[in-house]
Amino acid sequence: MSSALYWEDVREGMDLPSLVKRPNTQQLVKWAGASGDYYQIHYDTAFAQSTGLSGVIIHGALKNAFLGQMITDWIGEHGTLKRLSCQYRGMDVPDDTITSKGKVTRKYREGDQHLVDCEIWVENGRGETTTPGAATVALPSRSQPSP
Amino acid sequence: MSSALYWEDVREGMDLPSLVKRPNTQQLVKWAGASGDYYQIHYDTAFAQSTGLSGVIIHGALKNAFLGQMITDWIGEHGTLKRLSCQYRGMDVPDDTITSKGKVTRKYREGDQHLVDCEIWVENGRGETTTPGAATVALPSRSQPSP
Repeated sequence: MSSALYWEDVREGMDLPSLVKRPNTQQLVKWAGASGDYYQIHYDTAFAQSTGLSGVIIHGALKNAFLGQMITDWIGEHGTLKRLSCQYRGMDVPDDTITSKGKVTRKYREGDQHLVDCEIWVENGRGETTTPGAATVALPSRSQPSP
Repeated sequence: MSSALYWEDVREGMDLPSLVKRPNTQQLVKWAGASGDYYQIHYDTAFAQSTGLSGVIIHGALKNAFLGQMITDWIGEHGTLKRLSCQYRGMDVPDDTITSKGKVTRKYREGDQHLVDCEIWVENGRGETTTPGAATVALPSRSQPSP
C-alpha cells in the first residue's frame, strides 16, 4: 500500500493528474470492435460528411473511458470508483490531443466510507471543454485498517 | 442427409452456386475487429489515398472468407473442405457487388476419399476476376456408409 492514495492526502480544489491521449482512426476502429458501436460516423468519412459532420468523430464512450482511466490511475488499486458520468457536449476528432482533467470538489465521510467528489472533463487540443462530467471515489483512510 | 451433396451428384465442368455479397464500410470495420487486421487502408479514406489508392479497399482475407462460405454452403455439413487458396490479384472496394463463383475441374478417388477439385474466384461488379483460387473438397458417396 506504499503508493496508495489516502483520503487524508486529498484536499478540496486540488487538480487530478491529467491523462493525455491522441486517438487515431485505428483506435476508433478498435474501439468499435471492442464496444460493438459500429456507427459509421466513427470511421467512414464520406458517411460522416453526409450527416453534416466535417469528418469522423471520436466515440463519446471512448472519451468516457479516458475519463475513467484518468480517475482509476489516480486512485490506484485501493480506491474505488463509485460513480462516473459525463455529457457529450462537443465533438472530438481523431489525431487531436484529447486531455482528461479533473479537480476535487468535495471531501466527506458517509458512514464508514471516505468519499471524494470530482469535477472531470475532456479538453480538445485548443483547450475547449467538450465533455464535462463528475465522479465520486471512495479512498482508504489512514485512520482505518486496509479495506 | 436428405439434402447432402454426394460425390455422384458432381460432374466435371459444373458450376458451383455463386454467393453474392455487398460488403459496406461497416462490414470492413467488423472484419478488422474479428480478424485483428487493423491496417488503415481498410477504413481510413485519407490514409488509403495517401498510399495511392482511390479509397478504402476490402481485406483480402474477407474475400477469402467469402470463397470459403461459398464452398461450405455448397458441400453442406457432410462434406469436408480439404484445401482452399486464393490470390489477391485485384483490389475490391466497399459497396460493390462481390460475387464468389466456382467450377468443378476434377472428380477423383484417393484411397477411401471421394474428392472434387474446384476452380474458384471472386468477381467485382463489372465481372472482372479480382481473386482467383482453388479448392478441394471431400464428399460423401452413395456407395459408402455415411462418414
